[in-house]
Amino acid sequence: MAVITKRISVDLQADGDMADISKRVQDAVSKSGMRNGIVTIFTLGSTGAVSTTEYEPGLKKDIPRALERIAPSNIDYEHHKTWHDDNGRSHVRSTIIGTSLVVPFVDGKLTIGTWQQIVVMNLDTSPRRREVILQIMGE
Amino acid sequence: MAVITKRISVDLQADGDMADISKRVQDAVSKSGMRNGIVTIFTLGSTGAVSTTEYEPGLKKDIPRALERIAPSNIDYEHHKTWHDDNGRSHVRSTIIGTSLVVPFVDGKLTIGTWQQIVVMNLDTSPRRREVILQIMGE
Amino acid sequence: MAVITKRISVDLQADGDMADISKRVQDAVSKSGMRNGIVTIFTLGSTGAVSTTEYEPGLKKDIPRALERIAPSNIDYEHHKTWHDDNGRSHVRSTIIGTSLVVPFVDGKLTIGTWQQIVVMNLDTSPRRREVILQIMGE
Repeated sequence: MAVITKRISVDLQADGDMADISKRVQDAVSKSGMRNGIVTIFTLGSTGAVSTTEYEPGLKKDIPRALERIAPSNIDYEHHKTWHDDNGRSHVRSTIIGTSLVVPFVDGKLTIGTWQQIVVMNLDTSPRRREVILQIMGE
Repeated sequence: MAVITKRISVDLQADGDMADISKRVQDAVSKSGMRNGIVTIFTLGSTGAVSTTEYEPGLKKDIPRALERIAPSNIDYEHHKTWHDDNGRSHVRSTIIGTSLVVPFVDGKLTIGTWQQIVVMNLDTSPRRREVILQIMGE
Repeated sequence: MAVITKRISVDLQADGDMADISKRVQDAVSKSGMRNGIVTIFTLGSTGAVSTTEYEPGLKKDIPRALERIAPSNIDYEHHKTWHDDNGRSHVRSTIIGTSLVVPFVDGKLTIGTWQQIVVMNLDTSPRRREVILQIMGE
């Protein structure tokens, strides 16, 4: 049983832009030499998120639109009073989607579906480089 | 320390139907012979989800109704333009709820509450057989 | 490779009150003596949740307000018919946010950001002592 850490970074635009990191996660698992285990994908910071989706241009618009229903951009946030900041909605969306995802791998392959990709999102109100930890554990 | 993989499948109706898989997860942990560790529950595909809830008939209706507020069924989705598909809402809901859940076990028992069940959901617009990976790791 | 379990409890007010447990999680990791691995944070019961956020007074109000959009307090829930209960919204919110979070640690330190804290929420309609399992695995 071993633990291997890989850090990756992803440059993203604002307000729900996302990147498909499935290949980078698979490459890290392949290089680890482990056959069976799990990879924890954790995004640093409180205005990012990680999840899975079918990575295609339509959903890249549909998902931010749904987040706009949960935490609209045109209302006031108490968070802005704390820091004179403008990204209250970003924090709220991050907490609801979540910042960790755990994906099993079997015989060296991630067990994601053909139309299911691992995505990192930047929910902040300005472009950001999001840092992601891949913690691979298995044998 | 060991890794054991179990695959299960669940037949579900459309738009938020869910099944309680707690007993199947507990059985897999019991059969593994491990005493302490974690089980990762991961659902394949991008129109499913996994979470916990009190599994009773009322919430089986209340949860889909809340998802209807996040991603309504009566609006247009960009996803439909990509594939001439009808399940944009299903994908959005899946990304927000999430497709992985990790549950600890201690002395061979899952640490879920008495009124807390592990559920797999089908969020797609038609009935689906959802495939779920249980990755058990521990000692 | 080892597995260490730590149970903590947190007293919280109703409807989205939250506590920052980052220091308690870090302390448990430090005491474990492990250098690299993951900690699974799992909250017992189906009206709690665990996630990360920037823990500050503004977001402590903003997050419950967003949850009110997903599962309002002034509507009827089928759950209430099952148990003559009043916390349908609490269950729905818990299922959507989630009850597990997995955080990597590297060289003995959690890989959370400076402004990112691990929080446990009580979403129930009355104050509750929430029980949380920390399952630490690594080497």
